[in-house]
Amino acid sequence: MSQTNTRGKLYAISTGPGASDLITVRGARMLGELDVLYAPAGRKQGDSLALSIVREYLSSKVQVRTRHFPMSSNDDEKIAAWDAIAQEIVHQVQQGLRVGFVSLGDAMLFSTWVFLLERLEHQIDIEIIPGISSYSCIASSAQFPLCMEQQSMAVMSCTAPVQKLASALTDHECVVLMKVYGRFAAIKQLLGELKLLDHAVLMANASMDNELSYRQLADVSDDIELPYFSTIIVNRAWSTR
Amino acid sequence: MSQTNTRGKLYAISTGPGASDLITVRGARMLGELDVLYAPAGRKQGDSLALSIVREYLSSKVQVRTRHFPMSSNDDEKIAAWDAIAQEIVHQVQQGLRVGFVSLGDAMLFSTWVFLLERLEHQIDIEIIPGISSYSCIASSAQFPLCMEQQSMAVMSCTAPVQKLASALTDHECVVLMKVYGRFAAIKQLLGELKLLDHAVLMANASMDNELSYRQLADVSDDIELPYFSTIIVNRAWSTR
Repeated sequence: MSQTNTRGKLYAISTGPGASDLITVRGARMLGELDVLYAPAGRKQGDSLALSIVREYLSSKVQVRTRHFPMSSNDDEKIAAWDAIAQEIVHQVQQGLRVGFVSLGDAMLFSTWVFLLERLEHQIDIEIIPGISSYSCIASSAQFPLCMEQQSMAVMSCTAPVQKLASALTDHECVVLMKVYGRFAAIKQLLGELKLLDHAVLMANASMDNELSYRQLADVSDDIELPYFSTIIVNRAWSTR
Repeated sequence: MSQTNTRGKLYAISTGPGASDLITVRGARMLGELDVLYAPAGRKQGDSLALSIVREYLSSKVQVRTRHFPMSSNDDEKIAAWDAIAQEIVHQVQQGLRVGFVSLGDAMLFSTWVFLLERLEHQIDIEIIPGISSYSCIASSAQFPLCMEQQSMAVMSCTAPVQKLASALTDHECVVLMKVYGRFAAIKQLLGELKLLDHAVLMANASMDNELSYRQLADVSDDIELPYFSTIIVNRAWSTR
């Protein structure tokens, strides 16, 4: 058994933003060597965007376990759910299995993977494979730079207070505004007040078949229905006009 | 000739942080289809780290042009150098060639690629392929998260005034400090004053054979000789003790 036990390991594999070929070569190769793969399911039972991104790289022998993972761990029920998943993974790794966990975008940035990491980092052997974050993909796709030379960048969630977003937009040449969903009107107003509407792009579902892109934010209706994965990048040193 | 002309395109391909298998699958495939590849050379004549990262993906027919590109475009001589390279690329693309330009890390973040983009964006067909930035690789490699949920992140250059770095460290849970080279003592003092030395990792040459990693910054000598590619990640919500 000792030989088998040495092989056991947990791999957190970042999928990148959505297109299957925007995963890393390392991630794609590792997916083909897994015994078990955990894939996070969205709200609908059994649906996993992360799994659909990586499916082409899996071997025929891998056992896929699609699970609904809580998006936070801030109450007893959610803590118990993460603890249970962590224990299940420990058990499999101790049996000598190569276990994968796929994470959208980059596993270390706004990812629930960290709830597993904090439970498992001293218990089992772990390898994390980084990925392209959504904003990096948006910058390339929209041909809209993030920052240069002595400039700086802030990555914010639009769930933050407007005053905090305004400070970031004043302090940094580039600001990435994640989670625009449901908050577009307020963000558009803020960008207007700061005269930044001509220095921003809005993109949803970057690199996926249903990608949406807007380069003239002043022309976008306040009550537009945006998809869940919507992000605005502001760069006051770059103009869309 | 019209068929050939349609094929001509410029591809900005991000190499990722250094390990060849941390490039995207899309980037690796595209490298194999290039007719010409421009690779930036470092200070020493003919040396190109970016080229060494991608060499295994190139076809035998590709023509490699290693060039020294100025790190800025802020004086007449440097502007002229970028203009000349841009015109050379336009000429090749108009001849129907698939021309590549490799960029370390991510092409849209702290990359001289943007000096070409601003000259060429309305002249020729361009595709940009995103890459893993150094700090994303460091977070995965050090198993040290960037940010979560409602938190925010700032990416700063240590060439900024200390007061600006201090503000970022106060305003954001996570701060990435790039270009630590030559400034470690001042940064260490600042992190000490803000009681953040136990909430930081320092890594150089991430994912490369000569990778260096420090998790206890308080124990690192003030006058350590750091490599050029050195970065500190601070996350006040995560401890290294």
